[in-house]
Amino acid sequence: MSRSNDISLAVIRRLPRYYRFLDELLKKGVVRVSSGELSAILGLTASQIRQDLNCFGGFGQQGYGYLVEQLHDEIGKILGLDRIADAILIGAGNLGRAIANHLDFEQRGFHLTAIFDAAQDVIGQRVGDLTVSDMATLEEFCRLHKPSLAILCVPYDAAKANVDRLKNSGIHVFWNFSHYDIGVDDPGCIVENVHLGDSLMTLSYRMKNA
Amino acid sequence: MSRSNDISLAVIRRLPRYYRFLDELLKKGVVRVSSGELSAILGLTASQIRQDLNCFGGFGQQGYGYLVEQLHDEIGKILGLDRIADAILIGAGNLGRAIANHLDFEQRGFHLTAIFDAAQDVIGQRVGDLTVSDMATLEEFCRLHKPSLAILCVPYDAAKANVDRLKNSGIHVFWNFSHYDIGVDDPGCIVENVHLGDSLMTLSYRMKNA
Repeated sequence: MSRSNDISLAVIRRLPRYYRFLDELLKKGVVRVSSGELSAILGLTASQIRQDLNCFGGFGQQGYGYLVEQLHDEIGKILGLDRIADAILIGAGNLGRAIANHLDFEQRGFHLTAIFDAAQDVIGQRVGDLTVSDMATLEEFCRLHKPSLAILCVPYDAAKANVDRLKNSGIHVFWNFSHYDIGVDDPGCIVENVHLGDSLMTLSYRMKNA
Repeated sequence: MSRSNDISLAVIRRLPRYYRFLDELLKKGVVRVSSGELSAILGLTASQIRQDLNCFGGFGQQGYGYLVEQLHDEIGKILGLDRIADAILIGAGNLGRAIANHLDFEQRGFHLTAIFDAAQDVIGQRVGDLTVSDMATLEEFCRLHKPSLAILCVPYDAAKANVDRLKNSGIHVFWNFSHYDIGVDDPGCIVENVHLGDSLMTLSYRMKNA
């Protein structure tokens, strides 16, 4: 999809939000929406929205607005949600289980196929539809099933070694919830670091300096 | 803290990361660090780092670098981590429990004092050191204890009504994990929306357009 090669990450990061809001409009049976109406819902300027959507070829018609279903489906395709990739989750602690249970992976472009943990008392437990596998079998699993994405929910101390094992098993895309930052040393990887503690500290700052 | 009123949110959002890395250096016994060394660890340019830290008055000395402990403590103070504020969590489902158990609130400027849920079979259950309270007692609890922050881990459909109740109870700071976006209609509030699904869709895009 060469059209999207020059799109800035800032625009990309707004697309899931557009998609979410269009999904809501679709569920409410709304057929058509103007950039002005999207602006009021999203808290972005109408010109910003038109500019963002123009990056992908533009779907609206002057004075007519956007067809909700068409725009929704098109953004879904741009995000790659129509091409499901296999994901595995490492670390079946509180957070790992919550993520496995809480998120609708299929609707976000992924299929969660396995959960791994190194703790003997956790291996074999059920998490949603899956059974926790022994971390010792990771390499064999990856060789057979070639998952694309690893979701990392392990403690800081275990993260670096896990990333190395996963990379050696052919995984280069990481959704990282551990406190360890993947990315700085790993230029070949695609990483989204979710640092919940950082988000909480930002909130502390904003609240205490309001 | 008038010095920080003009600081952009982009700089603020980098501070927790500085704090985290300085914390690691401190634990390793590192006494002094240059902006060049910080740059190598953090993947930011040394000039960016100097510029960020100068927003708060600057702590370094030319050719000498930063004292790790001093910079760590100073950034902690800027983030308000030395002033603990009370937080409550709404929604003791998978994600709510994981957040309550997973995060070290005290080290991030907050004290988690109560967890609420509306489901009769969840009320009374233990989550970490806390017992889940009946959502019906929310208003009374807030009147007595005046918590500052609400952590929202409820489904989309319940979010709007919960936000209204919390605002009526004097809470205007939200850490929001529900799919509902607080903020657009609520200019008086301070909100960090954590949309895990958006993060996953961003990863889908980046992977499938790499």
